[in-house]
Order: sequence, then structure tokens, then C-alpha cells
Amino acid sequence: MKKALVLSYLGSNYHGWQRQKNAATIQQTIEEAIERLTGKSVYVSGCGRTDAGVHARYYVASVELDTTIPDERMPAALNAHLPEDIAVHKCVTVPDDFDARFSCISKEYTYVIHNSRTRNPFLKNQACFYPQQLDAEAMNEAAKYIIGKHDFAALKSEGTPVKSTVRTVLECSAERDGDIVRIKARADGFLYNMVRTIAGTLMYVGIGKLKPEDIPKVIESKDREQAGPTAPACGLYMTSICYGMEELDGKG
Amino acid sequence: MKKALVLSYLGSNYHGWQRQKNAATIQQTIEEAIERLTGKSVYVSGCGRTDAGVHARYYVASVELDTTIPDERMPAALNAHLPEDIAVHKCVTVPDDFDARFSCISKEYTYVIHNSRTRNPFLKNQACFYPQQLDAEAMNEAAKYIIGKHDFAALKSEGTPVKSTVRTVLECSAERDGDIVRIKARADGFLYNMVRTIAGTLMYVGIGKLKPEDIPKVIESKDREQAGPTAPACGLYMTSICYGMEELDGKG
Repeated sequence: MKKALVLSYLGSNYHGWQRQKNAATIQQTIEEAIERLTGKSVYVSGCGRTDAGVHARYYVASVELDTTIPDERMPAALNAHLPEDIAVHKCVTVPDDFDARFSCISKEYTYVIHNSRTRNPFLKNQACFYPQQLDAEAMNEAAKYIIGKHDFAALKSEGTPVKSTVRTVLECSAERDGDIVRIKARADGFLYNMVRTIAGTLMYVGIGKLKPEDIPKVIESKDREQAGPTAPACGLYMTSICYGMEELDGKG
Repeated sequence: MKKALVLSYLGSNYHGWQRQKNAATIQQTIEEAIERLTGKSVYVSGCGRTDAGVHARYYVASVELDTTIPDERMPAALNAHLPEDIAVHKCVTVPDDFDARFSCISKEYTYVIHNSRTRNPFLKNQACFYPQQLDAEAMNEAAKYIIGKHDFAALKSEGTPVKSTVRTVLECSAERDGDIVRIKARADGFLYNMVRTIAGTLMYVGIGKLKPEDIPKVIESKDREQAGPTAPACGLYMTSICYGMEELDGKG
């Protein structure tokens, strides 16, 4: 039977989602936990290939599983075999053709900036520390220009070649909450490092290096050099995913 | 000149506050940072000897310092020499006879419990994970019996011998905030492991192993066996300290 697992993880000690030789990854850690629980070798498909150091508050993975363990008991059973920095919150039986990656309608990432003169030890590896004052309202103005169907070639890094660099951004915003500035972006899909490049570009707006109304020119240029830097991995969280399935969709 | 430093730290990677042979401690790390900054060997006095894994959101240390660096520039200067899990927030020039430990009037510790069926990877080492449902109202009822001047021999661990086990607890409470239960305790001083024993005892009340009205008997017994277990270090934070000095007192 095909199962979907809702997970969260702290990415600091992992080399990203995808299985690698000689490096601990989330995918491999979950596959090994399932193998210890069921005694069978499995392949787990993840909803996104998060990079080294990137976190997930709401992540969905799918796996073909031959087990008598009821769905409601699966989280506790799997968590007993997983390290403290990965947690399974829910297990749902899904149609056989469901795949966490390909069945996805939209995903949301949140980029967390700790914008304070002094760092906070409790946010170590869990936010991007940025001591220069950011104008979150200007960043939010700029974010509005990112919404829509665009060629986002200017806002990505080189990675696995893709057929098209056109994506539809459904929501994009920046908001201050005390000394935390949160950038949220929801899209039908993201290019490699796209959210981190959006974050770096909005931070340039936040310090006045770019104006909100410069964003359309940056996008139209399709030139990575026109955008801001790629913000560090530690601030990035996958926070929501939508499949159009009530029992699976959510936010973290 | 005598200086007081306001600090916060994540204790997970340290063997507590106090300098030890062959183990990294907060005291040693701060002394070495000051030595790198000023070129002079120093002794830093801390307001409390937090144990391995215990955190501080508001901590005060004092040090005799011969420097021309103005107080307002000291936090940034020191933070440049400190690892990410320790931060200096403020530097205040204090009277020569000030000592972070002996000048203290009262301290507050907070014990953080993540009371949820499933663990939260982002609270790893930063809260005590406790999956069994806790009755925070009963815990708060029990906490009220701890307030006052008592012999707290029943609520401590064996440690460095002390002249008296009588302490005055000024505030003690337990409160739920979603799946977090916070126990706060303010006193003129604490015995070794006293807050962690109070936390373990209130958690026994939270699951019905003790009743709130059992607490006076537990205290009167002066018998450690009558109290609950010592709760783990990772949930404990120093959160406030009072010297009766406006520029130094605060909460974190």
C-alpha cells in the first residue's frame, strides 16, 4: 500500500534530503528507520530536494509499504527508530499513483531572518542572523512584484538542468515580528535556490541596495547578476504543501 | 574597572558554567574571548553555576577589566571572539565590590516542557520532551506550596556541601502555552538541582502521581525520596536576575 508521511526536521546535521554516498541525508535516515521497523528495503520519495542545512516544518514523503501497522500508530513506531531531529507527525494511506513529489500542486517555503544587532544563541542554525536594520515594508512591496507567472532565470542558481525556468508564484510576502523578518513564498514549483535568491534579493531591498520597483527589471533581465545574493541555507524552511487532499495538506 | 556583562547562551555543547580540566565550559570560553580581545588573563565570576546542558536567556557575569573599549562597544567586540551559541548583550561599569554571584538579590529559572505526543525537532536540546498529558493547572496549584521560606532538603541533589538548605522562594508557577508548559521559580538562591527537582516533582503532580496538597508534606519530610525525579538539564533556563540595579536587572 502507498503511504504518505507528514514530517518535520531540523536540517543542520544533514547533507540535505537526497541520499548521497558517504554523507547523512534525511531520505536515507528515514529509509533506514522504515527498514528497521518493517524488515524490508524501501525507497522514500520526498516532496522536495531540500539542500544541506535547510529545515522542514511541514514535509511530505511517500513510500510503498507492506505493513500491518495501522496508520495512526505509524508515527510513534517510526519515531522510535528516528533521531531527535526528525519527527513523523502523520501517516495517511494514499492512492497507488500518489507521489510526494509529482502529485504536489503547490509548496510554501519560509525564510527566517533574525534582524538584530546581537545574535540569539537559541536561533543558532535556525535563522539567518542579519545585524543591519531591514525595512520589512519595502521588502513586502518588492515581494508583490514576484507574484505571478514569470521566467525566474534571474532568481535561481545553476543546478540540475530544467526544461523551463518559468514558474508561477502564488504568494510572496515579507513581514516583521519583533526582531524576526519572515519571507514567505508559495509556488507551483521552485527552481534551484530560488527561495534563497528571492530572500537575498529582498534583503537587498531591505537595506536600500535595490528599490521595490527594481524587481520587475531584475526578473525581466533573466540575469542572475542583477539579483541579490543567495541567502544562507540555515534560514530556509519548507512550511506547507498542497496536494488538494484534506487529510494530507497542512502548514507547519 | 569592574564590568558586568549580560549574556545568553545555549548550553548544549558545554559542560556547564564552571571552568573544568579537559571540557569546554561557558566560563572558560568567555575568559578566553576576553583574553584574545584585551591580551590579558582574566577571571570571570558568574551569577550561577549552571550544569552541563543548562541554558541561559539572561545571565550576568562580572570581571575586572583594564580596557579603553567603551561599554557600548564591548558586546560587538566580544561577540566577534565568541562562538555562535554564546552572546554578550550588554556591558555595564559597576562598583568595584560588585560580584555577579555574591551581589545577587534574586534569580529566576524557567523550566520548559514540550508536552506533546510527537517531538518537535526544533526544540531538540532546548526543552524537555514529555509525551504524557500534563495537568498544568494542578501543577500551578502545587507550585504555590513551594513559595515561601522553607528547608528545601527534599528538593535538591547532593552536591557541594552548603551551610543551610533553607531558601526563600519568591515566585513559583506553572503555565501552559499550547504544547509548552513553563515552570518559573524565583528565589534568593537555589540549592543544587533544586529547580530541576521542583520541575520533576510538579511533573509528578501533572500526571497525578502526587496531589498539589502533598507538596507541604514532601517539603516537611526533608527526604529527597518523597519528591519527584530530577528533570533533565535540557529544559532548564536561567531567565532573570535581580541586583537592585536598574541598568543590570532584566529578563530574557
